[in-house]
Amino acid sequence: MNAKIITLSQAMNYDNIDIALFNNPQTIQYLTGYESDPHERILALLLFKDSSPLLFTPALEKEDAQKAVSEIEVFSYLDTENPWEVIRKKVESHQVPVKTWAIEKNHLTVARKEALESAFPDSLFSHDFSGLLENLRLQKEEHELLLMKEAGRFADEAIKIGARFLKEGITEQEVVAHIEYELKKKGISSMSFDTMVLFGPNAASPHGIPGSTTLEKNQFVLFDLGVMYQGYASDITRTLFFGDEPSEIQQEVYQLVLEAHNQAMQQAQVGMRAEELDHVARSIIDQAGYGTYFNHRLGHGLGQDVHEYPSLMAGNEMALQENMCFSIEPGIYILNQVGVRIEDCGYLDEAGFHSFTFFPTHLHAYKDFMNGN
Amino acid sequence: MNAKIITLSQAMNYDNIDIALFNNPQTIQYLTGYESDPHERILALLLFKDSSPLLFTPALEKEDAQKAVSEIEVFSYLDTENPWEVIRKKVESHQVPVKTWAIEKNHLTVARKEALESAFPDSLFSHDFSGLLENLRLQKEEHELLLMKEAGRFADEAIKIGARFLKEGITEQEVVAHIEYELKKKGISSMSFDTMVLFGPNAASPHGIPGSTTLEKNQFVLFDLGVMYQGYASDITRTLFFGDEPSEIQQEVYQLVLEAHNQAMQQAQVGMRAEELDHVARSIIDQAGYGTYFNHRLGHGLGQDVHEYPSLMAGNEMALQENMCFSIEPGIYILNQVGVRIEDCGYLDEAGFHSFTFFPTHLHAYKDFMNGN
Repeated sequence: MNAKIITLSQAMNYDNIDIALFNNPQTIQYLTGYESDPHERILALLLFKDSSPLLFTPALEKEDAQKAVSEIEVFSYLDTENPWEVIRKKVESHQVPVKTWAIEKNHLTVARKEALESAFPDSLFSHDFSGLLENLRLQKEEHELLLMKEAGRFADEAIKIGARFLKEGITEQEVVAHIEYELKKKGISSMSFDTMVLFGPNAASPHGIPGSTTLEKNQFVLFDLGVMYQGYASDITRTLFFGDEPSEIQQEVYQLVLEAHNQAMQQAQVGMRAEELDHVARSIIDQAGYGTYFNHRLGHGLGQDVHEYPSLMAGNEMALQENMCFSIEPGIYILNQVGVRIEDCGYLDEAGFHSFTFFPTHLHAYKDFMNGN
Repeated sequence: MNAKIITLSQAMNYDNIDIALFNNPQTIQYLTGYESDPHERILALLLFKDSSPLLFTPALEKEDAQKAVSEIEVFSYLDTENPWEVIRKKVESHQVPVKTWAIEKNHLTVARKEALESAFPDSLFSHDFSGLLENLRLQKEEHELLLMKEAGRFADEAIKIGARFLKEGITEQEVVAHIEYELKKKGISSMSFDTMVLFGPNAASPHGIPGSTTLEKNQFVLFDLGVMYQGYASDITRTLFFGDEPSEIQQEVYQLVLEAHNQAMQQAQVGMRAEELDHVARSIIDQAGYGTYFNHRLGHGLGQDVHEYPSLMAGNEMALQENMCFSIEPGIYILNQVGVRIEDCGYLDEAGFHSFTFFPTHLHAYKDFMNGN
C-alpha cells in the first residue's frame, strides 16, 4: 500500500473507524492512481480497519480499473443492480466490523448518505474525512510538483500561442478556439477550466465569458487559462497590452496590479498566514485608492483541482507550509472601463515561492514577445 | 413567475414546506434562466411558501445574476463571509416561517446540509425535491426541444467534420482536436462530454479515451460526441467503416447493432415501459448470441445534462411519455477485436420517436458521405 493509504489507515485506527468510503473521483485518483469520471454512476474506494481495501466501480470500468490498481481488489455493479446492495453484500462477506464509517462529507450527497444508511441500518456515518484529505492534499509530493510544473509549462505555451494569434478584428472566441486546438495537437486533452480571453472593457468582469467581441488597438487582452496534465491543473492569467501606448488609466491600473503581484510573490514564505499574504497585495491596492475594485481573494490552492486549499483571503489564519501550491492573482476591475489581473501559481519552500509559469509580466511583455525578446 | 416556479410553489403548499433551497446550478438555470458554474462557491435559489424568491450568489456574480433574473431579488456573499450566516440573516429579515425545508438531496452534500442545520438549528431538512425536479425535467417544453434540435444539428455537423478529416495515419486525438476546433469557430464553446474518437479495437472499450493510435485502412472509427447549446446537450454515436470491404465479423456485428438500433427507434412509443424498449434492442442482440457483449443499458435521458432521466434499462418500469428525451444506443464490444455502437437521441410523441440527429447509419454511410451521396 502507498504512503497515503497508510496515513489514512492510521487515522482510522486512531479514530476507531471500521470502514471509510471515498466517492470523490479525485480522492480515488489521489489514493490509487486510477482516474475515472463515473458521471452519475458510483465509484468508491473502501478502506477497512481490519481488512484489505476494495475499489467499487460500474461494471463497464471494471477491467480498466483492475489493470490500473493491481494491488487492490475491484468489484463492480451493473446498471440494473442497486449499487448500495452490492456494496453491502461484499462488505458482509468480509466479516469484519462495519459499525463506524468515515465518509467525505464535502462530496457525498445527502441522497447517497441516506442510501448507505438504508443498506447499513446499524452503522454510524458521522465521521468526516474531507478535512483530513484536504490536509493530505495541501502539501504536494515531489512527483506531484513535477506534474504541476509540466502543467505550468503548457499554460505558458498557451499564452504564447494566444499572443501570437492576436490581431485587430479577431474575436475572443476565435482566440480561445485556436489556443485549445494547438494544445490538443500537443496532447492536452482538457483544460483545467473554461479558457478565458477577454478584450478591453470585457476584462473588467472577473468571470467574463469570451464572445464575439472583436479586438481593437490599444486594448488589454486578458488571458486566464490552464491545462490538465496527468490529473494535475495549471492556471495562469496575463493581461497583455495590444497596442503602442497605454492610456494613463491603463498604465496606472496595470502597474498597481503588477506591484501587488510582485510583492506577494516576493514576500510569500513558509509560516506566513494565508490572510497575511492576501493583505500584502491588498494593502498596496487599497493604499492607491482602488481597494473596492479588487473584489476577490488573492489566490486559491490548486493541484488535482484548479480550486482547492489553501484559500488566500482575509480570515484564513492557516500557516502556509512547504510544498503548498497556490495562485497569486491580484486584480482591479473598473466596470465598463478596464480590467487587469496577473496570476501565477507555484509552490512554497524554505527559499520562498516558486512559480510554475514564467511568461513575463511587465506592461510591454506582449510587444517584447512579438519582437522576439 | 414562470410556470415551473409556480408548480414548485404548489408542491410546497401541498407538502407544507416553508422554504426550498436549490443549489444545483442546472436546477437554477432551469428555473430562472440564469446560467453559472459557482465551482466550490455557493449558488442557491430560495423559494418561500409565504414570500418572494431569492437568488443567492457569490459577490462576483451579483451584477450578472441580477441582470439575468430581473424579477428575482439577488443577494450575495464575499469570500470572507460565511455564506450560511448570510443566508440566515437574509431569511430572518423576511420574518416568514422557515421550519420545514425542501432540499435537493441528489445534489446537496452532507457537509452543506450540516452547515444549514447549524445555521437553522430549529428547522427540518428531511424533504427532498430531487425527484420532483427530475420529473419536471423529464418532459421537455417546446422551447427546450427547439434548443435540443439545434444541439443535435451541431452533433451531426461534428460527425461530418470528423468524417471529412479521416485519413490513414491520423491519430484519434488529432481528429478530436479538429472537430472541437471547427465547432468552436461555429460558436460552440463546450462539448457535452469529452469527445470520443476511437479506432479499430480501441472502440471495444465503451469508455475508451482517444490517444495516439493511428488510423489504418479497414478499421471502424467510433465517434461519440455532443455539444452544449444554450444549456442543452446533444449526444450521438456513429461507427464509420473506414475502408473498402468490412470483414465478416465487422459486418455481422455492425448489422446486428444497426438492427437493434432501428427496431428500438421504430418501436419506441408513448406508454411503453422504459425496460421494454431496452428489451426490444437487447433481445435482438441476445438471440444472435452476442448478449454478453452488450454490457450497458440501451439509453439515458438527456436535456440540460447529457445523462438524466429516464434510464432505459431492465428494471425501470417508468412509462415513457410525450416529450421525454433519451438516447437509443445499443452496442457490441468484443475486447481487443471490434466495437460498434450506434446512438441517436430524440424525443417521443404520439407519432413515435423523433431523432435530433440524422447522419446516416448504414454500414457504408462513410463511403457514401465522402462520395457526396
